[in-house]
Amino acid sequence: MAVKINSAFDGGNIECVDCASTENIRLQISRDAGGEFYQWFYFRMTGAANKFCHLKIENAGGSSYPRGWENYQVVVSHDKRNWYRSATEYRNGVLHFNITPPSDLSWFAYFTPYSLQQHDALISKISACNNVSLESLGTTLDGRSMDLLRIGNPNARLKIWSIARQHPGETMAQWWMEGLLERLTNNQDPVTREILKQAAFYVVPNMNPDGCFRGYLRTNACGANLNREWSNPSLEKSPEVFLVRQKMHETGVDFSLDVHGDEALPYNFIAGTEGVKSWSESRLHLQTRFKNNLQQLNPDFQTTVGYPVASAGTANYDICSSYVAEHFKCPAMTLEMPFKDTADTPDDKYGWSAGRSSALGRSFVDAIYSVLDAL
Amino acid sequence: MAVKINSAFDGGNIECVDCASTENIRLQISRDAGGEFYQWFYFRMTGAANKFCHLKIENAGGSSYPRGWENYQVVVSHDKRNWYRSATEYRNGVLHFNITPPSDLSWFAYFTPYSLQQHDALISKISACNNVSLESLGTTLDGRSMDLLRIGNPNARLKIWSIARQHPGETMAQWWMEGLLERLTNNQDPVTREILKQAAFYVVPNMNPDGCFRGYLRTNACGANLNREWSNPSLEKSPEVFLVRQKMHETGVDFSLDVHGDEALPYNFIAGTEGVKSWSESRLHLQTRFKNNLQQLNPDFQTTVGYPVASAGTANYDICSSYVAEHFKCPAMTLEMPFKDTADTPDDKYGWSAGRSSALGRSFVDAIYSVLDAL
Amino acid sequence: MAVKINSAFDGGNIECVDCASTENIRLQISRDAGGEFYQWFYFRMTGAANKFCHLKIENAGGSSYPRGWENYQVVVSHDKRNWYRSATEYRNGVLHFNITPPSDLSWFAYFTPYSLQQHDALISKISACNNVSLESLGTTLDGRSMDLLRIGNPNARLKIWSIARQHPGETMAQWWMEGLLERLTNNQDPVTREILKQAAFYVVPNMNPDGCFRGYLRTNACGANLNREWSNPSLEKSPEVFLVRQKMHETGVDFSLDVHGDEALPYNFIAGTEGVKSWSESRLHLQTRFKNNLQQLNPDFQTTVGYPVASAGTANYDICSSYVAEHFKCPAMTLEMPFKDTADTPDDKYGWSAGRSSALGRSFVDAIYSVLDAL
Amino acid sequence: MAVKINSAFDGGNIECVDCASTENIRLQISRDAGGEFYQWFYFRMTGAANKFCHLKIENAGGSSYPRGWENYQVVVSHDKRNWYRSATEYRNGVLHFNITPPSDLSWFAYFTPYSLQQHDALISKISACNNVSLESLGTTLDGRSMDLLRIGNPNARLKIWSIARQHPGETMAQWWMEGLLERLTNNQDPVTREILKQAAFYVVPNMNPDGCFRGYLRTNACGANLNREWSNPSLEKSPEVFLVRQKMHETGVDFSLDVHGDEALPYNFIAGTEGVKSWSESRLHLQTRFKNNLQQLNPDFQTTVGYPVASAGTANYDICSSYVAEHFKCPAMTLEMPFKDTADTPDDKYGWSAGRSSALGRSFVDAIYSVLDAL
Repeated sequence: MAVKINSAFDGGNIECVDCASTENIRLQISRDAGGEFYQWFYFRMTGAANKFCHLKIENAGGSSYPRGWENYQVVVSHDKRNWYRSATEYRNGVLHFNITPPSDLSWFAYFTPYSLQQHDALISKISACNNVSLESLGTTLDGRSMDLLRIGNPNARLKIWSIARQHPGETMAQWWMEGLLERLTNNQDPVTREILKQAAFYVVPNMNPDGCFRGYLRTNACGANLNREWSNPSLEKSPEVFLVRQKMHETGVDFSLDVHGDEALPYNFIAGTEGVKSWSESRLHLQTRFKNNLQQLNPDFQTTVGYPVASAGTANYDICSSYVAEHFKCPAMTLEMPFKDTADTPDDKYGWSAGRSSALGRSFVDAIYSVLDAL
Repeated sequence: MAVKINSAFDGGNIECVDCASTENIRLQISRDAGGEFYQWFYFRMTGAANKFCHLKIENAGGSSYPRGWENYQVVVSHDKRNWYRSATEYRNGVLHFNITPPSDLSWFAYFTPYSLQQHDALISKISACNNVSLESLGTTLDGRSMDLLRIGNPNARLKIWSIARQHPGETMAQWWMEGLLERLTNNQDPVTREILKQAAFYVVPNMNPDGCFRGYLRTNACGANLNREWSNPSLEKSPEVFLVRQKMHETGVDFSLDVHGDEALPYNFIAGTEGVKSWSESRLHLQTRFKNNLQQLNPDFQTTVGYPVASAGTANYDICSSYVAEHFKCPAMTLEMPFKDTADTPDDKYGWSAGRSSALGRSFVDAIYSVLDAL
Repeated sequence: MAVKINSAFDGGNIECVDCASTENIRLQISRDAGGEFYQWFYFRMTGAANKFCHLKIENAGGSSYPRGWENYQVVVSHDKRNWYRSATEYRNGVLHFNITPPSDLSWFAYFTPYSLQQHDALISKISACNNVSLESLGTTLDGRSMDLLRIGNPNARLKIWSIARQHPGETMAQWWMEGLLERLTNNQDPVTREILKQAAFYVVPNMNPDGCFRGYLRTNACGANLNREWSNPSLEKSPEVFLVRQKMHETGVDFSLDVHGDEALPYNFIAGTEGVKSWSESRLHLQTRFKNNLQQLNPDFQTTVGYPVASAGTANYDICSSYVAEHFKCPAMTLEMPFKDTADTPDDKYGWSAGRSSALGRSFVDAIYSVLDAL
Repeated sequence: MAVKINSAFDGGNIECVDCASTENIRLQISRDAGGEFYQWFYFRMTGAANKFCHLKIENAGGSSYPRGWENYQVVVSHDKRNWYRSATEYRNGVLHFNITPPSDLSWFAYFTPYSLQQHDALISKISACNNVSLESLGTTLDGRSMDLLRIGNPNARLKIWSIARQHPGETMAQWWMEGLLERLTNNQDPVTREILKQAAFYVVPNMNPDGCFRGYLRTNACGANLNREWSNPSLEKSPEVFLVRQKMHETGVDFSLDVHGDEALPYNFIAGTEGVKSWSESRLHLQTRFKNNLQQLNPDFQTTVGYPVASAGTANYDICSSYVAEHFKCPAMTLEMPFKDTADTPDDKYGWSAGRSSALGRSFVDAIYSVLDAL
């Protein structure tokens, strides 16, 4: 039986250069629309049970974040439920990994995938809960629905927004959303019960369904990087941002978290909005308190390593957090999670994982509760 | 919040003519490639919690099988897990149904859907079992893999083939496959244990992934009706049949079942291959015995109502069962399940359902065992 | 940490003679009330993670069915959910088994246990289903409830009775009941749906809760062997039989199956009631047909090996099946399952198991359906 | 079918005075050994499907904590899995509740029960996890095992002890343990991963199995109130305390939590050990910090209402927390949870529940982590 590589499915991305020999399976990642970005990959291999296979991603060195491959381990599954890390080496611009699969089907990905079908299952489960509404804000360029979940009373004092997967290849962001939404819809959860007395959550679990389906790293269907569209989005180029921003202006925003993955850094961290015009001592104080509390609540999060802090007045308002911080005069942050493992709290078997991302999403509820008095 | 209709997802099919008024939601089913067929529909409605909605499929009368709408009840879910029948009326060529959804998201379909994502989960689960191999036979016009599962020893005396979803809109056929594959991979199942001593099963759970994804009723990506391609398939027009037929010739076939749904008839039945040249008394005897045993084993199946029996020598070898019966000189049958409910064993809440289709798939194992001595 | 043996729990039975040395753990099985019977054992061992342990049941040779130890393999679990067979040897009247447990807690039993707590969970789940009633017929000597489940309409044409665990150590009989009751309460099951149009099932999943709790092999709390009490039961000595028999006379019986385990024979088989006065050709015909059909439906069942057939007129009416056959002039049978593995369809890992017992219980529904016309 | 009341099962407690009329079912709670205490009840009612039933516990007024019945709602289940509160009234010393059961079996209890079978399942699941050991410390008067779980490295810097159910009727204490143990054995939990780097947990999920099985409120098999035995326990009267205390002296204790329920107060609170001789500022500071943090982490917990604080030097060392605080010079606390609902965070459907108790157990891990630097 011949070994075959295939990525013609929801979120798939690989080009098979040659798979005639299992000892030299030559692969390339395809580029996002626009041709600028590539790094996400996701494919299946069949017919290789008990055969030693050597796989190579030959264009890894030219990807958007080549530093991302340092100390990176590929994510593998044989049953599409349990995903684990497998030994990987990056040398001379090529990513190498060996595997001898126990059965005929193996799935490989840059990070544990989160499909649109899972998105549909998630919103179906959540929207059937008490105290939840689902609104389709409009459609993407490929015609998909932009889905907004609201948990809690729309007349609540606080409107807390959270969005994920502006960059579609950052699947950990939607695993994080699973954790958040699980907490928010558990009506026996004591923190949820308290927090919903004061706040409504507006949650966009997937900002970029077209990019997700197409197996892209960073753009939507027409090649737009959504997190550079916030000051001037359009229905033609970035309807995803246009529609969500419009709704934010309708509801108001008191706190915002935009959830991402970072290819290079082996840390969970938050980037603030120190560069916006309206930045203030009180907002700095709250941001610091929030980050410190989250670190205390979840040791996978840390505050030591992160992006450089922006100088006053240098904010780029094309970016979600800066735009929101300035226009709503509220705390707005960007959460970054690693594709690799965390340097401080490593886990050899799973690395940074879907499960740990969900756990961090669950901790967000506690962290919000810990600063609720100051919002 | 506006009510919105969307079908831009795996297997979705609807065109929304107008949904401005919840009391008059006007819909049309889109045609398969080639423009000849349409009947399958599958869409979601959002923003309608607690609102009375009247939905109309306005081009139902022009569909491929207008008799299919008589006594038909639409299939609905609010959590995408539990699907039930809802009151439906067909008059003057329009299909009408009313609903007041309990929450903001509802899914409507011609029959309980079975997505490609479910297909991927199914083959991942099954191929990880003992005694199973998975082969990708090649790719479809849209680049998807044609997946073949083999359960049991390839050197076994008997090769039993079963395929489903040549017609992609007949989703019950893949639910049937779930039942079959569950039995065949349960290594504590006493019948499975016995049958695998003598037989290997070759199973194609989805013959037409492109049509499935595109939300078609009967054709593949280029408009070919696969069950009219068996005497002369080509990689250009019908690679799905070409690849499977080729593999059948490699393995041989001792028994074949092609699994379908019938839009009009409210019955489970088997169509035989009486019209093939090599038809014989012994094959008639076996076919009759198989059908009678299946009826005894599963009262949802019956032998009274069905298609007219073909006259001797009138077989159309473009059809799978006739082709296989003649070329392999073996029993080959076509199973038809209803889209509606069964007339003799009705179930008001669910009608003919995913669960009952799976149960019929499970019974297939028992029915094969009951005639194993004669194969 | 010292290794400890304990059986002070529901269904437990062992006496620890000496466990000071893990290489020589000396055990004895305790006797049922009355002192005649012993063979069932069930105990836990703690503190032995990664230590080689040699366990010996020193009084095995004097047990009720010493032939039962030939080719017998002990049943073990480390998580109390997954139970498997472990290598066992019977020599010079002593049963030996070695084990090096992977963790600190191990459970050992003669067969996979079925506790009263599981009984309570079972009747709670079943009695909450549609079309089911639960009646407490009265109490045992220890004050426990005698529970009768009825599935189906009490005015149905046929009353089908089934009882299990007259002999409490035969736990496979209640695993069998799990399978039966799962089928009978599945309202999407096509056979169940048909059969309940004509029949009501009266099911006593546990005839001897006191013996079960006390860890006995064959008797109730006062030492009575219930399957020798049917002609003359009393509230003082055998209230279990008294109450069930009384109810049988109230409902009538059209078919009866008494479910047991046999210590010595490595076969599933049915013992009939050929010795009763009213025996007839038609009953023989039905019994033969039932057994043959069950064999066809479930290859773990067979008809070749079993108990010798009773000569005409020699029935012992103290035994359930004979009593019922004679008083209700109906088919009444005794099903025997092995404690060991089946000789014809062996499974090295699990032997005859809880799962296979349940599968046989599920097949009973099909077998009844296959003779329904003749009842 | 007659309505029947039965409590002859693990943890059951009721005496049926008269159940001839469903409108006047007269019940009494039985006393613990020694005759001093009673309040726990747990029983099943059968044969009452769709019948209006009025149940009365006639000796409620004489129970150990009659104030416990004020604003108390009985806990009911019809499937033994979902338990909910049902309207209850306490007047003239009698507890009244009405119910019209949907099916034939209903279970009633003072609080959601936690059986010895569940205990066995719990320790089996936990002891099979990595990094866990199980030790049987010895046996109770009825011969049951005193089970100690250790999670983490025995050479860790900190030994954190937690015990539950000295008073067997306080079942919420073992539901709390489920939450704690779930956290401690989740090897993807970021807090657990950190905390186990410094601490080993010694957990006794059930201090009084004999009392639990017998359906007692407060004592062991011979009538001893275990939480009055700590200064001078004996193998004859209080082996449970003797064995655990002995082990504590072997391992040392750096933090101790004894988990209880309080019949009267509708609050979760912690009672400290201010009355012990070695009490200090630093211990007060830590205790206050721990309580405040727990309140922040879990709003079901509060610090306003509780028992009066003991005056310096008035400690009763017969009580676990005082004994441990004094002998190990460490923080030792008693957690009390309500049998009723919480006054500040009420839940009409479930009241204080098994699920919320487990959630509080999970929060204990976070609270320990929040003071880890000070231990």
